[in-house]
Amino acid sequence: MLVSVYLIAITAEAMSGALAAGRRNMDLFGVSLVAFLTALGGGTVRDIMLGNFPISWTQHPSYIYLTIGAGLITMPIARVMHRLHRLFLLLDAAGLIAFTIIGCNVALELGYSIPVVVMAGITTGIFGGILRDVLCNRTPQVLRHELYASVSLLVALLHLLLRHLGVEEDINILASFAVGLALRLSAIRWGWSLPVFSYAPGRWHG
Amino acid sequence: MLVSVYLIAITAEAMSGALAAGRRNMDLFGVSLVAFLTALGGGTVRDIMLGNFPISWTQHPSYIYLTIGAGLITMPIARVMHRLHRLFLLLDAAGLIAFTIIGCNVALELGYSIPVVVMAGITTGIFGGILRDVLCNRTPQVLRHELYASVSLLVALLHLLLRHLGVEEDINILASFAVGLALRLSAIRWGWSLPVFSYAPGRWHG
Amino acid sequence: MLVSVYLIAITAEAMSGALAAGRRNMDLFGVSLVAFLTALGGGTVRDIMLGNFPISWTQHPSYIYLTIGAGLITMPIARVMHRLHRLFLLLDAAGLIAFTIIGCNVALELGYSIPVVVMAGITTGIFGGILRDVLCNRTPQVLRHELYASVSLLVALLHLLLRHLGVEEDINILASFAVGLALRLSAIRWGWSLPVFSYAPGRWHG
Repeated sequence: MLVSVYLIAITAEAMSGALAAGRRNMDLFGVSLVAFLTALGGGTVRDIMLGNFPISWTQHPSYIYLTIGAGLITMPIARVMHRLHRLFLLLDAAGLIAFTIIGCNVALELGYSIPVVVMAGITTGIFGGILRDVLCNRTPQVLRHELYASVSLLVALLHLLLRHLGVEEDINILASFAVGLALRLSAIRWGWSLPVFSYAPGRWHG
Repeated sequence: MLVSVYLIAITAEAMSGALAAGRRNMDLFGVSLVAFLTALGGGTVRDIMLGNFPISWTQHPSYIYLTIGAGLITMPIARVMHRLHRLFLLLDAAGLIAFTIIGCNVALELGYSIPVVVMAGITTGIFGGILRDVLCNRTPQVLRHELYASVSLLVALLHLLLRHLGVEEDINILASFAVGLALRLSAIRWGWSLPVFSYAPGRWHG
Repeated sequence: MLVSVYLIAITAEAMSGALAAGRRNMDLFGVSLVAFLTALGGGTVRDIMLGNFPISWTQHPSYIYLTIGAGLITMPIARVMHRLHRLFLLLDAAGLIAFTIIGCNVALELGYSIPVVVMAGITTGIFGGILRDVLCNRTPQVLRHELYASVSLLVALLHLLLRHLGVEEDINILASFAVGLALRLSAIRWGWSLPVFSYAPGRWHG
């Protein structure tokens, strides 16, 4: 199940990368690269951070075709996608959760300590979006918007807690998805967000 | 021959990095760092992506001196270089092709599959320019301008095809250069570019 | 001693990262991430560059808590910190020097050549600040301001020279700190800076 969700997730992430590239008037190649990095950049940064070579996607060339293909197909259908906005938010949320769980599992298998496992999960979840925004020259959205990275953190902690309690992996994954999706979709629906830190030196703030 | 072209190429790339740093009013140190990363950043990202440690330039300290020296010498001669614009476009094109072929060969020797080999070639070719633009806080030019990254892609594919057909390496390199240079210089001359994807949410597009 | 200075330094760097995130109105999570990367990003880039896996901080989870904690505590006390500006410049300078010496020593132990050792020292010293600025979407300050990266370069060279001359490590570290702090604080006090390269194509420059 995690694999199916993962494939859907990298497709959705690639499309979000393509749209961001389109906002910067990039060409076919730029769209492909940003789509690829948005989808697979989180796992790449995680693998480098964990010293986990060869990097996962280099062993699965089909992921390269899938993400670049998804990026390119976004160009003619961008207008239609606009109407499927809600579906994309759902797929994106599912992707965030799948990426987080996969990231935790990779670090666990390599024997890293719990704090590093959590960071590997979050890194897999959010770094694709950060790379997308850095390449498109804007402040990373995931660090500013309604609950997003926090959902990744919570899913990582929940997944590790259930694992520690001896819950079977399949049930664990289902529970992590249920809680993560509920939280993320609620955050979108009601605009939940973390407190924002606004610091303007020279003026009053707090 | 590839080595000579490579040395000329990293010099030219370092100079292009120095000019970009100058546009941001960086100091001597910033110019050196941006020059270094523009010239050797593509190979660095490739080596990290392939898990190819130690990273190439750490075994060739002379490359460090050459690129930083080229960056610093750009400062007094920037005015003159303006007149040599065409020469620089030629050197830059040669560098793009040399970087691409070298990147493919590194990945081939490590036993990666063809799609990864192609990506290693392109990464070596274009990531120096991407790092330059990210450090100088602008949207990467190589993802927007006339055929550039596409030339890298085509050279990588051609090089691998000729290799697959059993063409001798020297002739292969010459052919790759001939086709790559012809394509890149034609693109500059006649302004060839890939279709651009312009996406402005909320407005009509397509 | 180096370890104590290091802990103070990553705390100070984390706080500087949090302030930068606050200027971009990031949320709690963004503040934590930028604080973490500002403090530990330099060492991370160094370890990746040297192929030194596992990356240092993954073996010291307490560093994760310390830097994220320092980032979060910055939010309520930012107003007070404004008055402690000078103390922070001092801690930041001490951190720059400690990071540089540690970076050199890591590369030395791995058997890299002197130019790479120097680059490892500088990378550890300044890359946290560069990552902070790239994430906050601004041109890296360390590449533009009064003597900063140059202090890192000088400390690296001095440290290696004293080591080459057979000076005992403790005295070497003290001397490196004395010279580095004197230079950095003088540069701040009297506004010393490196020559700036301003290049504006199409206009006169020099």
